[in-house]
Amino acid sequence: MTIAEQTVATEVAREDIPELMHRLGADAKAAAETLSTSPTEAKNAALRAAAGRLRANRTALMDANAQDMAAGEQKGLTKAMLDRLALNEDRIEAMARGLEDIAALSDPVGEIMAEWDRPNGLRIARVRVPLGVIGVIYESRPNVTADAGALCLKSGNATILRGGSESFHSSRAIHACLVEGLRDAGLPEAAIQLVPTRDRAAVGKMLTMTDLIDVIVPRGGKSLIERITAESKIPLFKHLEGICHTYVDRVADPEMARKVVLNAKMRRTGICGATETLLIHPEVVASHLPPIVEDLTAAGCEVRGDERARAADSRILSASEEDWGTEYLDAIISVAVVEGVDAAVDHIHRYGSQHTEAIITEDTEAAERFLNRVGSAIVMVNASTQFADGGEFGMGAEIGISTGKLHARGPVGVEQLTTFKYQVRGAGQCRP
Amino acid sequence: MTIAEQTVATEVAREDIPELMHRLGADAKAAAETLSTSPTEAKNAALRAAAGRLRANRTALMDANAQDMAAGEQKGLTKAMLDRLALNEDRIEAMARGLEDIAALSDPVGEIMAEWDRPNGLRIARVRVPLGVIGVIYESRPNVTADAGALCLKSGNATILRGGSESFHSSRAIHACLVEGLRDAGLPEAAIQLVPTRDRAAVGKMLTMTDLIDVIVPRGGKSLIERITAESKIPLFKHLEGICHTYVDRVADPEMARKVVLNAKMRRTGICGATETLLIHPEVVASHLPPIVEDLTAAGCEVRGDERARAADSRILSASEEDWGTEYLDAIISVAVVEGVDAAVDHIHRYGSQHTEAIITEDTEAAERFLNRVGSAIVMVNASTQFADGGEFGMGAEIGISTGKLHARGPVGVEQLTTFKYQVRGAGQCRP
Repeated sequence: MTIAEQTVATEVAREDIPELMHRLGADAKAAAETLSTSPTEAKNAALRAAAGRLRANRTALMDANAQDMAAGEQKGLTKAMLDRLALNEDRIEAMARGLEDIAALSDPVGEIMAEWDRPNGLRIARVRVPLGVIGVIYESRPNVTADAGALCLKSGNATILRGGSESFHSSRAIHACLVEGLRDAGLPEAAIQLVPTRDRAAVGKMLTMTDLIDVIVPRGGKSLIERITAESKIPLFKHLEGICHTYVDRVADPEMARKVVLNAKMRRTGICGATETLLIHPEVVASHLPPIVEDLTAAGCEVRGDERARAADSRILSASEEDWGTEYLDAIISVAVVEGVDAAVDHIHRYGSQHTEAIITEDTEAAERFLNRVGSAIVMVNASTQFADGGEFGMGAEIGISTGKLHARGPVGVEQLTTFKYQVRGAGQCRP
Repeated sequence: MTIAEQTVATEVAREDIPELMHRLGADAKAAAETLSTSPTEAKNAALRAAAGRLRANRTALMDANAQDMAAGEQKGLTKAMLDRLALNEDRIEAMARGLEDIAALSDPVGEIMAEWDRPNGLRIARVRVPLGVIGVIYESRPNVTADAGALCLKSGNATILRGGSESFHSSRAIHACLVEGLRDAGLPEAAIQLVPTRDRAAVGKMLTMTDLIDVIVPRGGKSLIERITAESKIPLFKHLEGICHTYVDRVADPEMARKVVLNAKMRRTGICGATETLLIHPEVVASHLPPIVEDLTAAGCEVRGDERARAADSRILSASEEDWGTEYLDAIISVAVVEGVDAAVDHIHRYGSQHTEAIITEDTEAAERFLNRVGSAIVMVNASTQFADGGEFGMGAEIGISTGKLHARGPVGVEQLTTFKYQVRGAGQCRP
């Protein structure tokens, strides 16, 4: 048994986990009831106070993080993983500002979404209310503790956070600041709870607590999402894959196509809105593709294509069937020649992940056909797929991007963390 | 082997069911893609044509129904079940008119829910789109075949209908009329499919087809819903129970309380919006409760209550703990004395099913507190809980009432059978 394993084993005994998780859930549910009618100002005060606590405790946060970093190095985490895990003054300041930004968002709770009168005099209002209790299961980035807790709080939900085991001490230290913020604002401390054990049994139990948790938001790689999907009895707001496409149409402006494709692929290759496949009309392959390939290869991108694409540019490697359904999250792009808008849409529906797709065209009719036919959460004309982001959409912070169709779709900000109820006001009406 | 069982066995061989259901699903998905951009007029034309076919084929429908009725009698169905199963000229006419009513509803698809510009010039629109493929699993009422198929079609969704085995022939005959309507209007016939076998294995397969079906709507009794909930890998819009409460507050008008409670309980006892528990403030138990009990008992309702309720009226029988969590769907009501609005809300949150609750009060502050604190889908002031209905809300027909919190909540009409996507229009923007 390594030291790390011993620590896990001594945190909470395995047999005590179901009861512990049930208690967390029950406390969250009670807190959610209070939060559902808590004034906006109290929620904002808690967020601002927590931001202050993060700043005041930055040395302690970095000490906690140093423990995680040392354990991570010992465990042989990759450099990229260690970078995601690391906290420094700048990142702590960014987290604190993130909380203040969420405090500055308008409160979705209580918003009257629609209101109408019935002929019998009943007045019906559809009013936004919190979802209740949201479970968030994430991997190594410790800042998710602050972001997710804050977004749920702002939308009036209680949260149960389950961070990655690598960031255990960092998340605990951040969570302590959030709890102090809640206490300062007179809100229940159980409004934001952190699962106090790294034992995976806690996640297993969490995913069965249908009476106590309303939604689970899993944040992480595909394997985490797939595991949680298979196991969860609770609905998920999840993001499985971003196999995004950019289609360069017959009447695309060549300069725009060149600039947008380069940005869509290479601005950041590791985000879900990065284009993974370029589709292109046969009539512009010869003219438009080589300059695009020029830019991509100059930027260090590997280009793989079908026969017709390769015929137009010898730098293109051969793509296999598997490429069309692959989310590279890397400096690789696949290129397929398609016979027009409809063929582009068919390719997208066959291989895509319903995330974000774009068409580059000067033809309004083609643009509208693409916008209407593509079934993805986000469909763009003449813009980079990298705009698929809650901040870029003007929604403020997001807890993630949902590739599901139900309830939350696309960027999930505070509004999508709510549901609604009907308030009906009468004067003694009876139904005939 | 009875004749009925032989019929089942010879319809489709058990081993062919997975492939059959997969084909239904794939056909539905293809049809859904067409429907998502089908013009409103085509959908309405299909509905009106189907209504005409129902009327023209009423003799054939009644013949098919006679087969089901005979089998049902042989099988020993109760009188109530046989009544739900029966078709006659009036019921066929009502079904046809139902289709025409749905044709007359406005089309939710394509509605721009919100639209805004970003500082970088991107224009973002949130547009209503169909969900895709909806599976509907129901019990004996054959009219659900027409209603559910029509609501899904109007909202641009393809449907896979799985009717109760008792109404097998009736549903097939109704379905044939819907398909003729689709054909007349030039829409894909697979837009509304009926599972062509009574074998329960078809349902089992259906509930695993996550790639082909977007939502399952189970309609039926609690045991059906529980079975489907346990088994389904696909999200459900479901209605589990309606344990509805009416709370008579300290400053309730006694005449209004009397009239509304009687209606809320006794107008129809078998619907989900019927009040099952009466809560009452201690200060008005002596004055308000006896006249209410008077009316209820005169209407044939059994009244069960706690000690304090029974002290006020000797006609009240003793309620057990179990009564508070029971959906009677019958002429029985339970009565509990609670200390005020907050105690009423606590009782509702402890025993209720998040369906519909009402307060009877002249005190605006108490009313607002009740409206805000109660977490149910529908919260009413001074009105009968029996108004919990899509038609009464002005939404037109409903496929059911959802007691879940996600996506669909309360009455589920055409609008709630849709989702949305973002359409983003740019001029070559790249993300910095």
